[in-house]
Amino acid sequence: MRILAVESSAKVASCAILDDEKLVGEIYLDSGLVHSTTLAPTVKSLLDLSQFSVKDIDLFAVSNGPGSFTGVRIGVSLIKGMALPLNKKTLGVSTLYAMAFNAIDQKDAVVCTCMDARRDQLYAALFHVKDGKIFRITVDNAVSFQDMFLKIKDFKEKDVILLGDGADIFYNFINKNFEKETENIRIMHSGFKYQLARSVAFAAKTLLESGTEAGDAQSLQINYIRPSQAERERIERANS
Amino acid sequence: MRILAVESSAKVASCAILDDEKLVGEIYLDSGLVHSTTLAPTVKSLLDLSQFSVKDIDLFAVSNGPGSFTGVRIGVSLIKGMALPLNKKTLGVSTLYAMAFNAIDQKDAVVCTCMDARRDQLYAALFHVKDGKIFRITVDNAVSFQDMFLKIKDFKEKDVILLGDGADIFYNFINKNFEKETENIRIMHSGFKYQLARSVAFAAKTLLESGTEAGDAQSLQINYIRPSQAERERIERANS
Repeated sequence: MRILAVESSAKVASCAILDDEKLVGEIYLDSGLVHSTTLAPTVKSLLDLSQFSVKDIDLFAVSNGPGSFTGVRIGVSLIKGMALPLNKKTLGVSTLYAMAFNAIDQKDAVVCTCMDARRDQLYAALFHVKDGKIFRITVDNAVSFQDMFLKIKDFKEKDVILLGDGADIFYNFINKNFEKETENIRIMHSGFKYQLARSVAFAAKTLLESGTEAGDAQSLQINYIRPSQAERERIERANS
Repeated sequence: MRILAVESSAKVASCAILDDEKLVGEIYLDSGLVHSTTLAPTVKSLLDLSQFSVKDIDLFAVSNGPGSFTGVRIGVSLIKGMALPLNKKTLGVSTLYAMAFNAIDQKDAVVCTCMDARRDQLYAALFHVKDGKIFRITVDNAVSFQDMFLKIKDFKEKDVILLGDGADIFYNFINKNFEKETENIRIMHSGFKYQLARSVAFAAKTLLESGTEAGDAQSLQINYIRPSQAERERIERANS
């Protein structure tokens, strides 16, 4: 099975092609340019460089949230645009679950993938990474820094690794408020800290192997977790 | 400082741009196409996607061996071709040292970067990865599987992690000949096991910060470790 994966849930625009076990290619771009400008050309470049066409792809995978609403929408739309005309299967993968694959080489650690969700919250989830496998500990959620720290506190005896664009602010919060509690907590290196499309591809493959079914392009949904600002304002106006 | 790094010492063609601490972009390609076809377009695509020109690059870094003789020559030539007309600095980085950066998020482990050198040998070196830093344990060498295993055996109390295209054959050799000695040894996940240009870029940055001086393009050398087959045959003919 050949998977094309796209990641645009935060600042990084990334795409990857995974051919069974083999990572054929990946482009990672954190250039400050907007996804609406970069994402499609990034996918086109990867297909051209690897001499594949969209017709050669069996499954189109995408990180479908949580994350930047616009970013996720662009990624999901791009995947739909490629899969729909060819009647190919798609799979939406949790951004937070996919990111845990960046840390798959940890022998035995608790991995906290976390994104800055603004309004003093994180999009975050915990996973147990052990011997090349990833086990989910918590669901994806929008949580306060304090609540997320309380969850991490349960794993004092383990290495806890933070990654994602929320990692630094979350670590600083813990360090400021619970100074003596950071001994077992560390942040991933900047080369591997942010979203990678290869991780989305490996996550998609793992989900398929454990029974998740891919759907058609039209059934692909976004998992926002929180309502958007526009929706919140609309609800507030309706209630006022 | 903005570093453009190129990696073509084995099957993967890869290039990356590192801007101070920030990884701006990377392309990774393991498509089965030859480096003479793919490497230059890969660099061109990365520059185009990130909207940089070669003039915006301060340092051109390349993994300069050990590795595939042809692969390394193509990478080094490409770097020279970009740096020379612009009179920019270059830095050659050991392939094996650069690869250790793939494992920089290990808390405390011995990392064995190893490439299949054919003729029953590995190009290999050992590093101690601890708290985000990489310390060299052995020099880069062409060694027999047996000799490399004897070096690893000294670290029975530590996690030992193998990566590179020699990792599987080396692990299989250990498993076959010293079955009970593999408990603390594991192989990196295929998503992070092979050469990454981001690692070459981070390795170059680390070397510069610890006092290594970049040179001009003409001074850039290749570190073959072993003579090439053509050279061996020439020497044999001369001696016969």
